[in-house]
Formats: sequence, structure tokens, C-alpha cells
Amino acid sequence: MAGENKERLILVTNDDGLYAAGLRSLLNVMEEFGRVLLISSTESMSGMSQALTIKSPLRVKLLEQTDSRTVYACSGTPADGVKIAMNKLLEREPDWVVSGINHGANSSVSVLYSGTMAAAIEGTLNGIDSVGFSLGNFSPAADFTASEHYVRMIMNMLAENRLPRGVCLNVNIPPLPLEMIKGVKVCRQSDGNWREEFDKRKDPMGRTYYWLTGSFFNHEPEASDTDEWALKNGFVSVVPVAVDMTAHTFIPTLKSKLKSEEVRQN
Amino acid sequence: MAGENKERLILVTNDDGLYAAGLRSLLNVMEEFGRVLLISSTESMSGMSQALTIKSPLRVKLLEQTDSRTVYACSGTPADGVKIAMNKLLEREPDWVVSGINHGANSSVSVLYSGTMAAAIEGTLNGIDSVGFSLGNFSPAADFTASEHYVRMIMNMLAENRLPRGVCLNVNIPPLPLEMIKGVKVCRQSDGNWREEFDKRKDPMGRTYYWLTGSFFNHEPEASDTDEWALKNGFVSVVPVAVDMTAHTFIPTLKSKLKSEEVRQN
Repeated sequence: MAGENKERLILVTNDDGLYAAGLRSLLNVMEEFGRVLLISSTESMSGMSQALTIKSPLRVKLLEQTDSRTVYACSGTPADGVKIAMNKLLEREPDWVVSGINHGANSSVSVLYSGTMAAAIEGTLNGIDSVGFSLGNFSPAADFTASEHYVRMIMNMLAENRLPRGVCLNVNIPPLPLEMIKGVKVCRQSDGNWREEFDKRKDPMGRTYYWLTGSFFNHEPEASDTDEWALKNGFVSVVPVAVDMTAHTFIPTLKSKLKSEEVRQN
Repeated sequence: MAGENKERLILVTNDDGLYAAGLRSLLNVMEEFGRVLLISSTESMSGMSQALTIKSPLRVKLLEQTDSRTVYACSGTPADGVKIAMNKLLEREPDWVVSGINHGANSSVSVLYSGTMAAAIEGTLNGIDSVGFSLGNFSPAADFTASEHYVRMIMNMLAENRLPRGVCLNVNIPPLPLEMIKGVKVCRQSDGNWREEFDKRKDPMGRTYYWLTGSFFNHEPEASDTDEWALKNGFVSVVPVAVDMTAHTFIPTLKSKLKSEEVRQN
């Protein structure tokens, strides 16, 4: 149960930056489960995916230290933050990497762009049980009360059950009051994509520039086993995410097309 | 065969920037297959993953236009470049998105960090047959002769066979002369991870900063069905990559642990 194991060590991060309400909400819940090392950036890192800071150095700054929490600011991306915390800041491997609570959903293919989910994937790559949480509400003033309830539920499950190697969880909470949420639904990632519309403008020097905008298009709105369906129908979606991106089922066909493994094709 | 279909429209990009030798090599081969729109950044975007430019505007600049090629510089990431090309620069959907040839391998979990593979994944999300090519040699002066041979082989296969929806190809070429390469091998993504060692330094003001370094650790060096094994044994590795990251096989277990789909769990 929550609160009983103060020895648990939890790495907490997000991609909305240090001052996001969703991060504070997650920090408070995680302190019920153990000692927290929090690392986040001073700026938003939304849409940074699994990007790493390679061309410039990283800086970290200790902001707060109490018995239950240690808080660092990091100049890098969410993936950078997990890497440097694991390598330089934590005295041992954490038990969990928990990321979020994101302001805005990370369902369907948003898992590929999300810095929040990148942090969880980075934890998984290091063999740590990891979860990303997102609320389907972009407002900085969003209400995280219902989200906190479901963070507790998922983490209580993980306190009793390890995840398989190479798998993390992508948890999305619909923007509804707790009493309106129907429960959790384990799902697959919905087939969809973002369709862009670049807003074309002129700068004060008369030069053209573009702002990225876009809207999500669900290719299978009727499929009730998907995260998009769950969220639209009032459920919390839980998608197990694999770091192995191999399209295993296509391997036999591809082998036949490429006459693979023949020696010397040239 | 190469060269016969000048009506084919091919979007070419990379993550090493406009001036990379591997991009020039890919451009030359792709002009044998059709008309090319090339878009790349003036700076290296290695390790940018699927990152999008959200907080600042994008700029594009037409650099060159001939009968067979149109070349643009883009201020953004590889994923940005594919998005803006599809939305603003191409007169119709391209037949292929081809990315690379990367200076350095993108095998195993590097697929998660690679800007080269992100461009291919972006093409796939838009329903376009897409491939990322990488050579296992980081040198700016690397020899791409053998790589060009295998680019032709893979693209000739794709000229005859469409990829399944949601699947692109991650092709890695070992750093060997053509006559030493044993052929192509269709593989799965090897289970491994990058282990970081942050180089801690002091700036001229006496403040600490860190440079990210790291080395790849293969968790299954004996597994002969993996890309890492293929490359170490002199084969070109071809991994079909799925944009669906769902860990499908874990869904039944997770459902049982979460008592999923029960209404009202609070």
C-alpha cells in the first residue's frame, strides 16, 4: 500500500517543465510511495520525443532537498534528464521512473513525439519499471484530482507486479471529474496520425516563416480495443509500450522479397 | 529497374545536415529512380529522434532547382522537414520517403533516438513507403560505394513491392568494402541499450557542466536473428520497423492485473 515503503526510490520527471501543475501533482502522489528524485527542465520540452542533447553540454542544478524529495533543474530534454539522473545524481538504480502528469493526451501515435513517454521509455531501456501519465487537458490550470486517483491505482499495481523487460506503460486520463470516469481499460495504440497545417506568416523583415499546427486523425474510430476509443468513452487508457519496434509479423514476407541471407548478392 | 520511371516523386532527407556526404550519395542514387525533393537542415540533427519544432517557427529556403531535383534547407528537425515538405513543398504525395545515408549505424535501440529513422517513420505515418539507410562509419569522409549498391537493391525491391501500412525499413550497412559484404539479412531489432558516462567539466566561470558520452551494450550478442549480429558478421541488416509500439503480447496479463474494464474502480 501507498506510504508503507519509504525505502522505495522513485525518479520523477515530465516534459512540461519544472513549474507545471501536473508535475507537482505527480510529485505529491509519488512521495506517498517512496523517496523521490525529481528532475525536470526550466522550459517546456513537449514534442521533444527521445531527443538527446549532443551538440551542447548539459547543466543540472540542485533546487531543493528534504527527507522525502530531491529536486533538480536540468538544461536538457526528458531523455537527457533520466540519463544524467541515473548516471550522476541517484545513489542507486531507482525502483521506478514515473513521468508526467502531462498537460495534454499522449494517446495513439503521440507516443512517438512525446517527451513524457520518452522519459518512461528511457527508464525501460535501463531495466526500470516505468510509466508515463497524461491528462487530456492542455490547460495550465487543469484539475489533476481524478488523475491522482488513477496514478495511485496504477502504482499500487506496480508495487505488486513487475513489468516485463522492455515494456513501459502509457496511461492517459480523460478530462473528466473522478465520478464520471468509468474505470481503466487496457488498450492498444490507436492507428492514426497528425495532419499538419503550417501557418505561413511574414516576419517584420518581410521574410516567410511557418508555425507548425495540426490535428489528430483517428483511422479507426470504431475500434473499441484502442486508447482513443477508451478516452472518448470515459475510460482511463493503459497501453503497454514496447521498446522493440520490430514489425515481427512482416519478417517472413520481407525475407522472401529480399532473398535474405543469400551470400554475396552483388 | 532504376532510371525507367522519371515520374516517381521521392522525398529525400537525413539528420546529418545538407553538407553530409551520405546525403549527396543518396541523392545521386535516388535520381536514378525518379524526381527528388531534398530537404535537410543546415546543421546536424543527429539524436533528435521524432522531435518537433513547436516553440519557434520554421524556415525553409529553396537552394537548387533542376529537372531532376529540388533542394531545400529547413531550420527544423528531420520530422519537421518531412511534415513541411508533405504539406507545403511537394505538389503531390511522394511515392517514397528515403532518409540517410546516415554517418553511423542506427541499429538496435538507436532507432528510438535517430533523426534519420524519425524521418522514415514520419513518412510511414503519412502512408508513404519509407526507408532509412545508415552506414556504420561516423567519418565525414566515409566511403559510400557499398552503401549505394544496397540502396539500389532495396529500392528496386520497393519499386516492385509496397510495404504494409505502418511499417518502414531500417537498413544498416556494415563499414566494409562491397566485396567483403556477405549480402542482406532481414532481422529484428537487437535488445540492447546505451550506457552513459557523462564527462564532468568546469566552464571558464568555474561552473560545472556535463557532456553526454556513452557506449552501446548488446544484451544478446549470440542471437543470430538480430541486426547487431548481422552487422558484426558482415551482412547488411534490414529491420522492418512498426509505428505501433504496443506490446501486444502483454495485454492479457495486464488486463488481469488491472481488472481492466470494470466500471467505476474508485
